[in-house]
Amino acid sequence: MTTLEHAGAAPPTGVPAPAPTAEHGDPYRAFRDELFAAGLLVPTGVDGLYLRSEAFESIVRGIDAAVSKMAAVEAPTVYHFPLVVPAGLLERTDYVRSFPDLIGVLDSYAKGEAGYGDLLAAAEEGSWPQHLEHTGLGLCSAACHPLYPTLAGSEIPPAGRRFEIFGQVFRHEPSVDPARQQVFRQHEVVFVGAPADAAAHRDAWVERGLSLHRRLGLVVEAVVANDPFFGRGGRILAANQRAEALKIELVAPICSADQPTAITSANCHLDHFGTAFGLRLGDEVAHSACVGFGLERIALALLAAHGLEFSSWPASVRQELGW
Amino acid sequence: MTTLEHAGAAPPTGVPAPAPTAEHGDPYRAFRDELFAAGLLVPTGVDGLYLRSEAFESIVRGIDAAVSKMAAVEAPTVYHFPLVVPAGLLERTDYVRSFPDLIGVLDSYAKGEAGYGDLLAAAEEGSWPQHLEHTGLGLCSAACHPLYPTLAGSEIPPAGRRFEIFGQVFRHEPSVDPARQQVFRQHEVVFVGAPADAAAHRDAWVERGLSLHRRLGLVVEAVVANDPFFGRGGRILAANQRAEALKIELVAPICSADQPTAITSANCHLDHFGTAFGLRLGDEVAHSACVGFGLERIALALLAAHGLEFSSWPASVRQELGW
Repeated sequence: MTTLEHAGAAPPTGVPAPAPTAEHGDPYRAFRDELFAAGLLVPTGVDGLYLRSEAFESIVRGIDAAVSKMAAVEAPTVYHFPLVVPAGLLERTDYVRSFPDLIGVLDSYAKGEAGYGDLLAAAEEGSWPQHLEHTGLGLCSAACHPLYPTLAGSEIPPAGRRFEIFGQVFRHEPSVDPARQQVFRQHEVVFVGAPADAAAHRDAWVERGLSLHRRLGLVVEAVVANDPFFGRGGRILAANQRAEALKIELVAPICSADQPTAITSANCHLDHFGTAFGLRLGDEVAHSACVGFGLERIALALLAAHGLEFSSWPASVRQELGW
Repeated sequence: MTTLEHAGAAPPTGVPAPAPTAEHGDPYRAFRDELFAAGLLVPTGVDGLYLRSEAFESIVRGIDAAVSKMAAVEAPTVYHFPLVVPAGLLERTDYVRSFPDLIGVLDSYAKGEAGYGDLLAAAEEGSWPQHLEHTGLGLCSAACHPLYPTLAGSEIPPAGRRFEIFGQVFRHEPSVDPARQQVFRQHEVVFVGAPADAAAHRDAWVERGLSLHRRLGLVVEAVVANDPFFGRGGRILAANQRAEALKIELVAPICSADQPTAITSANCHLDHFGTAFGLRLGDEVAHSACVGFGLERIALALLAAHGLEFSSWPASVRQELGW
């Protein structure tokens, strides 16, 4: 493994999962309770898995529109990705090795009539998932990942290619922090092309992201971050990722002013995806870079900053959201 | 099990999966190839799992808006549901027993450092999914299912309650028919309340659905249908569901004029969900009913009817979609 085996468009993974403690009065649970009470999110009984209200979605739509407006100058190809992916994608992106504890793969029932009696008996006992088999499908770990196979083996033109992606992501990390959801959306802008252009794309979008978040009235800063690589070996990968400043997160307060949360992430992938998927740029391997706006987290940062009553939000923020 | 153990808002399951044959020139694969060539859908290498273009999504947004406009007269509570659900929901809705071959449950890695070496070795061989464990999460089988737990044990007011749901659904049924996707969206309008009102809701939405689809220029009719209950026992459940006309599908041509595809489904659940989730209406169990608009299928029916070039679509259709 190399230092390049990082998380792609990552969401918001560089900031350690906050462990709510009595010391600071569990602000994570407290804010989540407020969101539940206001009906903005609806509990499902599973930490990190919530139903969303129309009000919450109206914030997400506003952010989406603001990001698209900024992306339009690049005339990107626009894609919308479902949450489900071929499980092989998790292998090719190295997610199985680097983040096995966060991935999700799908099982279903495939034993036909012959095994159905056993399945029914197991259903009575709640042990039915043991009777299912791997489907060859998994869930998407970072919004831009399904893009790269579509480019596999293709020649990237010298000026590169630009994509805007509406994606969905799964991370198996139950938490009471409302900003750490197990299913969330990333709105990404991706560049594939020459190394210097990829780095420039990342840097330009750090600035654009800071500017957008500030126009939205958020107190935000850019910090060097790392993905949560698995295990002891992962600590080395994380340290290398930080040393090379490959991952920049834009962080803003959500539940805690002291521990701001990553709401947007801008990443240099170097040749990680280019090598894995055979993306050629003349005689060289194409580089890639992306910015991922974490829609649920930006919405929560706005709710934390401006309050749960939209009518009291600043006019400039409402205008930025297209309301 | 009773005759009431049916599929909720089912999509498009009553029409048997078309088995493309040389006899009719495989119109399913042919239309899918056209959609790929036009870039409306992008292949992932897995049948029934596609990336969606912005053009395709613009049709979906138009349909969503048209459905919401019709639903607005009922002043529903509006929810947006993620694809992932607690796996227990699949038990409570009886999906594990009735449609085990269609469900999806999620595994992830939970053995820590101790098992990581084995996982890495398995990753080399492609057998890594065997090293994962059930997470307690699954994928949603019908868009309205996550709604019922939120009402559990609550008293439904005499006039009932109305909901509009933007949901996502997984069905493990790979097919070359572009209308039979493994992940798709249902836009539902749900009623929970008195039995007669639930039946009236279903019937009213059959008419509204027919009207909308006809305004969209589709040749559509309403037919009694059944869900694809599993196995030999399932055939009895399906026959009972048909005999009671609990499920009405609106069908329109997509790949074949002879075998139209269900694009919208209107369902009487009777007390299935009311009993499973303790929904009370005074001293009685509340009934429920829903209509589910199959967004991908309606979009495909429009593409089949009006062609892949939007500019040539009738003005009345474009107007209905808000374009």
